Amino acid sequence: MEPYIFKLPHIKNALKDLDTIKAIEDGFVAYSRGRTIIPPVGELLFSDPPGDAHIKYGYIKDEEYYVIKIASGFYENVKEGLPSGDGLMLLFNQRTGQLSGILLDEGHLTNVRTAAAGAVAAKHLAPEQVDCIGVFGTGIQGKMQVQYLSSVTPCRDIMVWGINMEECKQYKKEMEDLGYFVQIDLEPGKIAENCNLIITATPSTKPLLKAGTIRMGTHITAIGSDTPEKNELDPSILKKADIIAADSIDQCKTRGEIFKAVSTGVISIKKPVELGDIISGKISGRTHKDQITIADLTGVAVQDIQISVAVFNKLISINKGG
Amino acid sequence: MEPYIFKLPHIKNALKDLDTIKAIEDGFVAYSRGRTIIPPVGELLFSDPPGDAHIKYGYIKDEEYYVIKIASGFYENVKEGLPSGDGLMLLFNQRTGQLSGILLDEGHLTNVRTAAAGAVAAKHLAPEQVDCIGVFGTGIQGKMQVQYLSSVTPCRDIMVWGINMEECKQYKKEMEDLGYFVQIDLEPGKIAENCNLIITATPSTKPLLKAGTIRMGTHITAIGSDTPEKNELDPSILKKADIIAADSIDQCKTRGEIFKAVSTGVISIKKPVELGDIISGKISGRTHKDQITIADLTGVAVQDIQISVAVFNKLISINKGG
Repeated sequence: MEPYIFKLPHIKNALKDLDTIKAIEDGFVAYSRGRTIIPPVGELLFSDPPGDAHIKYGYIKDEEYYVIKIASGFYENVKEGLPSGDGLMLLFNQRTGQLSGILLDEGHLTNVRTAAAGAVAAKHLAPEQVDCIGVFGTGIQGKMQVQYLSSVTPCRDIMVWGINMEECKQYKKEMEDLGYFVQIDLEPGKIAENCNLIITATPSTKPLLKAGTIRMGTHITAIGSDTPEKNELDPSILKKADIIAADSIDQCKTRGEIFKAVSTGVISIKKPVELGDIISGKISGRTHKDQITIADLTGVAVQDIQISVAVFNKLISINKGG
Repeated sequence: MEPYIFKLPHIKNALKDLDTIKAIEDGFVAYSRGRTIIPPVGELLFSDPPGDAHIKYGYIKDEEYYVIKIASGFYENVKEGLPSGDGLMLLFNQRTGQLSGILLDEGHLTNVRTAAAGAVAAKHLAPEQVDCIGVFGTGIQGKMQVQYLSSVTPCRDIMVWGINMEECKQYKKEMEDLGYFVQIDLEPGKIAENCNLIITATPSTKPLLKAGTIRMGTHITAIGSDTPEKNELDPSILKKADIIAADSIDQCKTRGEIFKAVSTGVISIKKPVELGDIISGKISGRTHKDQITIADLTGVAVQDIQISVAVFNKLISINKGG
């Protein structure tokens, strides 16, 4: 049987009435319960021009598909008017190995599952009363994280930090067009003083946030740091935090904020818990309004599996007139 | 730009006048010269029903594409009338990461590059005068290896060994329809006595061939043993051999006939040479008619890169009316 092939416009259409947050929650729970088979991430690096391609793949046991996701990032593409990211997701039948579907999502589903994971983290860890959402980074995730938070908090106030004023102004314009109120501040400490839900979504390799400036009761979702080099939070913030939740403890041993804090001896690897265990109720999430919580999201294949299967099933049902 | 997507009939058409042997030779040379970036093979295993999926990927430096190949084997598919293998190859631009093409080859190009690699090995190692081609295994490679040998030797005589007489008879019929003369013998020693070019292409986990029965001057291409468990040749044959050529010495440290012979202490890991070095002339191939030579082919991503790029470029030129 020939595989179904779907392009980005159809994929975006299918996403419209999909509960992506539920799909990602279920994925994290399956992952933390050991119901997934997820090998180490495959990686290809390029130097001239600089770029990378990652292969994330695996399956949830006894479900219908296994999924292989390929995503690339070539940041000099923008010079030539091309998007920096591209990618696709492949679904294969677990019982026959047959290629069932190709989602030519151009990297969009990776953005969606990453944003949805941020919303999942905030749903279980953010304070009940969010005063203002602090956003570090004016890129795609700086925007999408906030949009996916809308199902979790009614707060529409944003303070944004960016690498320069021009990008911040562009961000402000785009987000205000979507109904948010945006203040710009290039002083990270100011954002920490004013916001109790903070998203860090930059490629920074030096900490942007310091422990001293974090308010009681703040939740931070760190999603920018997905390699061993990247680092957005001062490790002392992880020491100060009451709860540190990782999407994957295993993966956070080699990349992300937890890796930095553990490898510098600031926290023990025993401190972080897994987000899936909080979602399932095996471990408590936030129990007090003053707790400082951190979600360190490095991106796990189970998110790719869940988003691609949800979108694919939806597209098949649309195709069949369902 | 949208990727080109090509299906199997187009791919088969493009293969008709492609010099696949040259493409594979160039690939092995690039590999042995250290011009390739090839990460470890990605693998997913399934138990009920048993199956596996492999991801082979990488690139030749400074060329146009990087390639990701996915191939699966689910051997119980035949019960349901489905082919046991499926797969596809993906080509991405090395300078932008953009998906350039999808070859929906259903695993066929893996068969082609494997058969072409056998022909390359025979071209450089087989004796000048081939009396009879011995074939272990009546599957796809048992057939395709012989067909790809036709550009390397005029010999059309085959002695075949198979797991049972029925499969051998089927093999004999198919190959005789293609113009070969086929004798069946279920006694491996008999095949070794009569043939000086031997292909082993079975999933055996116990040696089929013993050293004592191998004729002087014989070349053996072992392609069945591509996992740590599989084993077709008694390790003493590798001890007796004058030349052992691996497609990848690195890969043969963990799988294939060389792995078995080295791990049981029968040969030193220093004995095998790399096929690419023989092709390039850096190391001598066969220098005497009485030498016993072995090629241990476990399958390297550079073959997938070469075959997919050759086919893709051909398809693009056909598409443009070239």
